[in-house]
Amino acid sequence: MRNLEEALEDIRFALLNGGDAVTPFLSLEPADQAQALEELSEEERDHIFANLDIGARASILEELPEDEAAELIEELSPAGIAEILDETSHDVAADILSQLPEAQATSTLKQMEDADEVRPLLQYPPESAGGLMTTVDLVLKKDQTAAEVIETIRAYEVDANSPYYLYVTNDAGKLVGVIGLRSLIVSQPSAKVEEFMVSDVHKINVLSDQEEVAQMMKKYRLALVPVVDSEDRLLGAIFSDDIAYILEEEATEDMYKLANISDTDIQVWSPVGFSIKRRLPWLVVNLATAFLAASVVYFFEETIQRAAILAAFLGIVAGQGGNNGSQTVAILIRGIALGQVELKDVREVLNKEILVCLVNGAVIGAAVGLGAWVWQGNPALGVVVALAMIMNMVVSGLAGTVIPLALKALRFDPAASSQVFLTTITDSLGFGLTLGLAAFAMWQFGVNF
Amino acid sequence: MRNLEEALEDIRFALLNGGDAVTPFLSLEPADQAQALEELSEEERDHIFANLDIGARASILEELPEDEAAELIEELSPAGIAEILDETSHDVAADILSQLPEAQATSTLKQMEDADEVRPLLQYPPESAGGLMTTVDLVLKKDQTAAEVIETIRAYEVDANSPYYLYVTNDAGKLVGVIGLRSLIVSQPSAKVEEFMVSDVHKINVLSDQEEVAQMMKKYRLALVPVVDSEDRLLGAIFSDDIAYILEEEATEDMYKLANISDTDIQVWSPVGFSIKRRLPWLVVNLATAFLAASVVYFFEETIQRAAILAAFLGIVAGQGGNNGSQTVAILIRGIALGQVELKDVREVLNKEILVCLVNGAVIGAAVGLGAWVWQGNPALGVVVALAMIMNMVVSGLAGTVIPLALKALRFDPAASSQVFLTTITDSLGFGLTLGLAAFAMWQFGVNF
Repeated sequence: MRNLEEALEDIRFALLNGGDAVTPFLSLEPADQAQALEELSEEERDHIFANLDIGARASILEELPEDEAAELIEELSPAGIAEILDETSHDVAADILSQLPEAQATSTLKQMEDADEVRPLLQYPPESAGGLMTTVDLVLKKDQTAAEVIETIRAYEVDANSPYYLYVTNDAGKLVGVIGLRSLIVSQPSAKVEEFMVSDVHKINVLSDQEEVAQMMKKYRLALVPVVDSEDRLLGAIFSDDIAYILEEEATEDMYKLANISDTDIQVWSPVGFSIKRRLPWLVVNLATAFLAASVVYFFEETIQRAAILAAFLGIVAGQGGNNGSQTVAILIRGIALGQVELKDVREVLNKEILVCLVNGAVIGAAVGLGAWVWQGNPALGVVVALAMIMNMVVSGLAGTVIPLALKALRFDPAASSQVFLTTITDSLGFGLTLGLAAFAMWQFGVNF
Repeated sequence: MRNLEEALEDIRFALLNGGDAVTPFLSLEPADQAQALEELSEEERDHIFANLDIGARASILEELPEDEAAELIEELSPAGIAEILDETSHDVAADILSQLPEAQATSTLKQMEDADEVRPLLQYPPESAGGLMTTVDLVLKKDQTAAEVIETIRAYEVDANSPYYLYVTNDAGKLVGVIGLRSLIVSQPSAKVEEFMVSDVHKINVLSDQEEVAQMMKKYRLALVPVVDSEDRLLGAIFSDDIAYILEEEATEDMYKLANISDTDIQVWSPVGFSIKRRLPWLVVNLATAFLAASVVYFFEETIQRAAILAAFLGIVAGQGGNNGSQTVAILIRGIALGQVELKDVREVLNKEILVCLVNGAVIGAAVGLGAWVWQGNPALGVVVALAMIMNMVVSGLAGTVIPLALKALRFDPAASSQVFLTTITDSLGFGLTLGLAAFAMWQFGVNF
């Protein structure tokens, strides 16, 4: 295997000097070829791709994200696309077709040899088990012997994508068992499949969500999982090498949502218009809540006129409450995603969380209070901000715990909106507590700040 | 396979009524048994575990996180522990031993039959390839025939953990090739290993970081990767079923750091003291930066005295800048983690980001300005906050782009500290711009708010 960086230098050099860029490109294996293409400019990319044979093109499409794969071939004629997609695995072909314009996809499919295998895969949503699965070509029957099976495998055209597990179905097409190549090798040639197959098979329904698939394959460490319909008929299988991508996608999703981004498709290189459309809505939502918090401050306008210094501490009290709450939210979002916690645990989690926030609140509150006192030489100010801070920290911990669990219980996505609710609470409360306590001290005890 | 929930009911019922809890427990497969134990109280857990045979205990330890596995057995005698760990795979045994107290681990290891296989695994850091790998017992030579290899496999005790790939080494123990069981089955019995082995093998150095291992196995879709020393000698192999866990851990790490949590070990059920220790430091850091922002407000105390209403808008301008910047940071952190972007791309990313922030800033700025105008019936106020908002949004986009890339280039962890720097900038600037522009309007043009 060539080193990607070296090869890229040779390729770029060849492209600049009209030399042969294809040979260094082909010295890479498909996964690196795909990455190399992503690093090249669009013209360079198209130039190289145009000079590859069908097989090489197909194996690159296998490695690219489906949208990029579609981009690479959308210029080609339906016949040309069909020729390539016939060489890719069926699930990849289906994923790419679903990215092409309706008309182009239809006419491409018409001209594909594997149309009959690929078409059924197109009917399932891309994030479902059906969207992830590929077709299973080699299916066994219970009464075949080990020797017969080995013969079938020999006769059968084997490629890197052929699985290490073979499924057994009955005449109705229902999944009745699975054998691994290992047990095949170690069993007597005359042994019947039913004698050494495992009949208690992990399987997943074709409509299950991809996250469910990923968590199941991860938990039971499955290299391959069979996909069945409601009648247990074998429809296809999902390879574990997709799981890493799914889990990363789901993790990115949660992380983005905490940062108020609603769409994982956004990444560094997304087009500007797309980024604006996906980022703006959340800013607008946050703006509404920000006005809510602002009205709390406005309510105390008179107080601030008399003690403008309070304005300097509003951000500290509100902000720290927000930071503390975000910590809690992040921990709960992750806990929910990994299935460690649900609504029924709320009291137990709260007890723990309140303790944590009381301690951290006391420390931070004391620090803020002392800071205010020393800075402004005004002990009363220190007491006010210290009290406001402690209360805001504890409430933010409560809110950070209850909000995600409640949203989850109400079947909303906890990651998506927890942060907005939290900020509204911590800001409004932070402002209100600080100014309210100060006002109270002023009007009741004639304290000055 | 039993359904976990059903089985748990039966188990709890049996435990309450002194019935047989072990039978329903054993109706579950190991991964579910492990999960069931986690759902039970400590006494219940120990009671059930104590009533399992060695094999059942071993297969549960295989499925538990190493720290929980260690907890389950630490009460046992070294001899008792050794007996169980001899039944687990070598890497699991090593991981668990590394969680036990030094003395206990040493005396346990002394009494283990597999000591010689496990000991070498203990010398590598847990987050390195060496820490993840397990030993490879069955290694082939180039001149063996397919028939001989199949015989070896037959003779060799096969269990679910035996791999589907077999490595070939030379007399010096150097890795020279790999064969898959599939090619073994389809090749002629008389064919020599060297004829059908793949000699161009993906391998990883024993000291590589676990993230490197995960990214490599993910990229090349490897089910198993051989681990070698600097001289290419085969030391062990890593199974892909660990990858999902590693990738999730890395993703959690980034997400937590954005929420100012420095330690992925924190989760919902972490002990209070532990959570406090890990969460407090970040709050303290943020407090320092908050005082910085507060001093900006203090600098404009006089302005606020004359126009207290401005205080209500400080939070909006600063907060929206923060939200916008967080979006940018999250996208860049993810881009950096997935290797999509590095410092050299900074100009290109900035051009894109500035555009996005200009548009979003204009929209949000206009909304805030109008809101302020309508709410307070004061157009000048609207102009001031609108201008401040637009500027803060654009700067937050710049900062959100440059900070993570710069930290990465300086070999700091971008996820860990970007948020703190960002907030300091967006708060200070948000406050400063709003109050500065207002002061300017007041003193220069005698505008009143």
